[in-house]
Amino acid sequence: MTNRAKVKVGMIGAGRIGKIHADNLLRLPQVEVVAVSDLFAGDELEAWAAERGIGLVVQDSAVLIANPDIDAVFICSSTDTHVPLIEQAAKAGKHIFCEKPVSMAIEQTEKALEAVRAAGVKLQIGFNRRFDHNFKRVREHVQGGTIGEPHIVKITSRDPNPPHPDYIKVSGGIFMDMMIHDFDMARYVSGSEVEEVYAAGGVLINPVFAEHGDVDTAIVTLKFANGALGVIDNSRQAVYGYDQRVEVFGSKGSVAVTNDHPNTAEISTAEGITRDKPLHFFLERYNAAYMEETQLFIDSLLKGTALPVEGNDGLQAERIALAAKLSRELGRPVRLDEMKELMACRS
Amino acid sequence: MTNRAKVKVGMIGAGRIGKIHADNLLRLPQVEVVAVSDLFAGDELEAWAAERGIGLVVQDSAVLIANPDIDAVFICSSTDTHVPLIEQAAKAGKHIFCEKPVSMAIEQTEKALEAVRAAGVKLQIGFNRRFDHNFKRVREHVQGGTIGEPHIVKITSRDPNPPHPDYIKVSGGIFMDMMIHDFDMARYVSGSEVEEVYAAGGVLINPVFAEHGDVDTAIVTLKFANGALGVIDNSRQAVYGYDQRVEVFGSKGSVAVTNDHPNTAEISTAEGITRDKPLHFFLERYNAAYMEETQLFIDSLLKGTALPVEGNDGLQAERIALAAKLSRELGRPVRLDEMKELMACRS
Amino acid sequence: MTNRAKVKVGMIGAGRIGKIHADNLLRLPQVEVVAVSDLFAGDELEAWAAERGIGLVVQDSAVLIANPDIDAVFICSSTDTHVPLIEQAAKAGKHIFCEKPVSMAIEQTEKALEAVRAAGVKLQIGFNRRFDHNFKRVREHVQGGTIGEPHIVKITSRDPNPPHPDYIKVSGGIFMDMMIHDFDMARYVSGSEVEEVYAAGGVLINPVFAEHGDVDTAIVTLKFANGALGVIDNSRQAVYGYDQRVEVFGSKGSVAVTNDHPNTAEISTAEGITRDKPLHFFLERYNAAYMEETQLFIDSLLKGTALPVEGNDGLQAERIALAAKLSRELGRPVRLDEMKELMACRS
Amino acid sequence: MTNRAKVKVGMIGAGRIGKIHADNLLRLPQVEVVAVSDLFAGDELEAWAAERGIGLVVQDSAVLIANPDIDAVFICSSTDTHVPLIEQAAKAGKHIFCEKPVSMAIEQTEKALEAVRAAGVKLQIGFNRRFDHNFKRVREHVQGGTIGEPHIVKITSRDPNPPHPDYIKVSGGIFMDMMIHDFDMARYVSGSEVEEVYAAGGVLINPVFAEHGDVDTAIVTLKFANGALGVIDNSRQAVYGYDQRVEVFGSKGSVAVTNDHPNTAEISTAEGITRDKPLHFFLERYNAAYMEETQLFIDSLLKGTALPVEGNDGLQAERIALAAKLSRELGRPVRLDEMKELMACRS
Repeated sequence: MTNRAKVKVGMIGAGRIGKIHADNLLRLPQVEVVAVSDLFAGDELEAWAAERGIGLVVQDSAVLIANPDIDAVFICSSTDTHVPLIEQAAKAGKHIFCEKPVSMAIEQTEKALEAVRAAGVKLQIGFNRRFDHNFKRVREHVQGGTIGEPHIVKITSRDPNPPHPDYIKVSGGIFMDMMIHDFDMARYVSGSEVEEVYAAGGVLINPVFAEHGDVDTAIVTLKFANGALGVIDNSRQAVYGYDQRVEVFGSKGSVAVTNDHPNTAEISTAEGITRDKPLHFFLERYNAAYMEETQLFIDSLLKGTALPVEGNDGLQAERIALAAKLSRELGRPVRLDEMKELMACRS
Repeated sequence: MTNRAKVKVGMIGAGRIGKIHADNLLRLPQVEVVAVSDLFAGDELEAWAAERGIGLVVQDSAVLIANPDIDAVFICSSTDTHVPLIEQAAKAGKHIFCEKPVSMAIEQTEKALEAVRAAGVKLQIGFNRRFDHNFKRVREHVQGGTIGEPHIVKITSRDPNPPHPDYIKVSGGIFMDMMIHDFDMARYVSGSEVEEVYAAGGVLINPVFAEHGDVDTAIVTLKFANGALGVIDNSRQAVYGYDQRVEVFGSKGSVAVTNDHPNTAEISTAEGITRDKPLHFFLERYNAAYMEETQLFIDSLLKGTALPVEGNDGLQAERIALAAKLSRELGRPVRLDEMKELMACRS
Repeated sequence: MTNRAKVKVGMIGAGRIGKIHADNLLRLPQVEVVAVSDLFAGDELEAWAAERGIGLVVQDSAVLIANPDIDAVFICSSTDTHVPLIEQAAKAGKHIFCEKPVSMAIEQTEKALEAVRAAGVKLQIGFNRRFDHNFKRVREHVQGGTIGEPHIVKITSRDPNPPHPDYIKVSGGIFMDMMIHDFDMARYVSGSEVEEVYAAGGVLINPVFAEHGDVDTAIVTLKFANGALGVIDNSRQAVYGYDQRVEVFGSKGSVAVTNDHPNTAEISTAEGITRDKPLHFFLERYNAAYMEETQLFIDSLLKGTALPVEGNDGLQAERIALAAKLSRELGRPVRLDEMKELMACRS
Repeated sequence: MTNRAKVKVGMIGAGRIGKIHADNLLRLPQVEVVAVSDLFAGDELEAWAAERGIGLVVQDSAVLIANPDIDAVFICSSTDTHVPLIEQAAKAGKHIFCEKPVSMAIEQTEKALEAVRAAGVKLQIGFNRRFDHNFKRVREHVQGGTIGEPHIVKITSRDPNPPHPDYIKVSGGIFMDMMIHDFDMARYVSGSEVEEVYAAGGVLINPVFAEHGDVDTAIVTLKFANGALGVIDNSRQAVYGYDQRVEVFGSKGSVAVTNDHPNTAEISTAEGITRDKPLHFFLERYNAAYMEETQLFIDSLLKGTALPVEGNDGLQAERIALAAKLSRELGRPVRLDEMKELMACRS
């Protein structure tokens, strides 16, 4: 908990997601956004910051982290910078909000978490989908016992468009970059840890994925500690828009959520019955969820409430993602408890 | 009740609806269809009857009615023949299934009902929609108290195509020909009698309706004896298909039924989300309902169970239809208890 | 258009709706809320204003209207004050946003509109539902020709709870207080004026409505200038929540919008399939619509864009509401062009 | 093709499914059901047959197969009898309709198919779901190119209740008994062969499944020859009823079908929005599909049209089911082309 009435925040990384977090923070009366750092900071970012009354704009995040005025940082820079930034920020006593994934190597993530623990600061991971109205309702029903013991968890997650080829190269692959959200969702809605995964994938959309050893379409089977089974399907391109659905089936029934649409209009003509496509992409669909995760992080700092997503949640999702990646490469199921050994063999 | 193991039926009128009833009757093991009469009986009808093992084909319905072998007749001829046929059949001791409406003049219908009462035979009116799975479920919920006291009854009923102009001329108008089904539905789902109607109509589809003093689009407001209000909208042409919906709203909630579709397929493409149009027309939508009304009529004859739709149901729906017609002509609401007077003034 | 970079706004009336508008205005960077007046202004309002940086809090709206610093006023006080306030504000050269209805007497509203015209200021009426994502989509499809010529307009509008009995007394009745939104919607989605109405109503929920000559349940039939027919049903109490639906049916098809729900969750258990009730009431359902009407009003002042809802829209909806009221009292349809005469007869 | 005007059919096995087929056959005018055989034939079956005009009732199917009057047999007896009966019937020159699966051993099924080929008779397998209105629509859209190249096939298939413990013992396990329908569906809707499967299963409903080496909940991942991926989930107990859904997602969009419901009624009360559960079980859901598969089999005999489901379809589904069983036992994916080898190792 900060001992000031307002939380002073510094933004590290001012790309699309960093700017979204900044604007959401600016809507909270208990927050002051005092600084922003970005490797490419320049006139444009200066103007953007000026409009919002953000006084300090720097290229070097170290300047920002060293600033004694700042209570908390939002790490929205590229994934490879997350671990060192977390370590530095923790050492400087800053609370941390970090975008997912923490890193693409489990030991690195563990190191970052250790630094956070040692410093006694707070670390929230940006699994924004946990705050979506639909998925929260699924979890409420599972936790509340409506559907009894969970037996089957099904998650569909498809993007409207594949990312730019430049990004694919550095993305960490579909499991670490895209399905990691779904691995977190699987843990969130089931309330159980994943023990084993089997990943099947294909390059069906664009051969560029194959060039980077990646796939664009994947189905992953999960076995949970509580005995439940799960399946996640991902596609990098659903031409009809962002497809985000979850179903949990159990001994007393099921709860299923489908997509959100921009309106409820149903058009009936001689050709058929039509409705508009789902909300386009994550900014539209998870708009309110981004706001809520930020609000709860700030609440945690000011009121001492529990963080809604902790460092360990980031770690566990990364472990599942790596297991999925290994599973596809090995062509066999992989248990999470054999990962260390498998990783050792590879290196 | 007949004292034979099988009910022997004679069909009067072998148009589309007569043939449907015949084929439904032929599927019932307790029924024998022994004769069919039609003004235009000829080679074609002979062949149709032969295929089905119907032994007697005549032009003159009197021959059929005089046949001592016949227990019950299905009157499926044109509306102007209904009343004399009911009278003759009743006098001959035949049970009667008669298509709606009994007649277009209340006194005529009353006369036919009196003949039925005097003869002690059974008369069922062809309000097939009462047997539709959706509308039955509405009624069950209203009767069962799920929605408390009914406050608002809403009925939408739109045909995919207007009838042939030749038929429009003799149809009796939209209220007697088409909305009469909805007037019966209003009584059926509300469990209450209609006391007043106000009808607004327009010729928006085809001027041919205006030539016959008819309208092709109409909205009728109803006041029920139990205080509830109702509204029915009819259109002779819904290009997206047969539109048949009912909603009853009350003190404890509402029950609403929408259309049936040929399948549940939802197609998602870059253009939007699409599904197939509703089941095309009454033959598709009310297929099972036609079967059930026939089954229950036969059950009533064999087992003495109550008729599901009686002569009085035909009479009441006709009274509402005539009141609606008058209302539109007079441009004011019409109470059902002022009809006699109004009709007297007109003649 | 104001010649200042920011629009300075004064709020008149700080009840629930006034506070909503104030908070929405405060989210717009181009707006400064400088003053608030309320008959009951006191410590509580002072605190509310202080939190929001609103410098001036007064009881007398005249002080606010006289303030040369203020460009525009939001009139959110009780309906009986609207006309004098509009006149005073217009005379003082302020642009005006006024909650519906302007007044309950057509001549009064006409007087207010004349004052606005004379002063050359802008007047927007608070028909917030025009900005709802669903209803906008209906209008787009009608305007865009998707459904051809409109034939039937159906509007359902039911509140979750009746208002407090004290309010019922002064509400102006269901047609002026509640259905007025639907009358505006009818004009908005059809793109046509209403020429005749027939209103049926009943007291089915609470006898207190009858005590004030009011009804709690009503169905109104509309005839439009373009030949289309319409029907609106209102209930003061839908126990399952706020029910707001619109359908426009035409020569080439129909467009229908249903309610918004807090989530898409579908629960399947041994008892049946369940989902959550619609968004509770107008604050939840029309949250974004309130924001957008405010934004567009401010845009109009700053950029000279057209007002999305003008004074005449308020006047026309009131004329229809009064016609509906008369229709129910007289028990017959009322044409809008016979209103003056009818009102003259009454007084 | 038979050279008689009517196809004369003998029923082998008069359990539930045999009786359904018999009644469907009796509704076809081109069919005469002349005999029925059942190991437990007795008074009850005699009475059942008499009611339907089926002249011959025997215990020994050989009598029926030897009957020169019979053109075709329906094999509805227990799975272990299918292969010898097919061989005997084929040798006797009878056309054959056989319930799924042909056998639980691929070599046995191949032997039966060879006998059919040698005799030149027709063999249709009872994959009734291919004739379901929803699944046919999925296939039409996939075949018609609506969704482009298929990328992901998802099939959900859950029974309302587990079978009797006695049956579980002899069922052949979830993959051969229940999911075999879904394996056929996967081939049917994708238009591609399955090349590899990975099966995960659990005993979550009733330990009795474990006693027989079986599971009650399973998720199977499929890889198709055309590169697509698939996933099937099965549960022996969905308390909300029979859950039968299919989705095919591809380069141009997706087509998804959900369950059929007994009506479209939506109940809105203070507790929420409710609808009735899906059609209860396979008899309700696939009622029309059973009729259509029978009709098409008879058409094929009389008109020489192609069989809609051939012997090879039975064989392929069995191969996938066995691969799934092996996969679960081995805890790794199994390619269909390594099955022979794997089976050899086991014995």
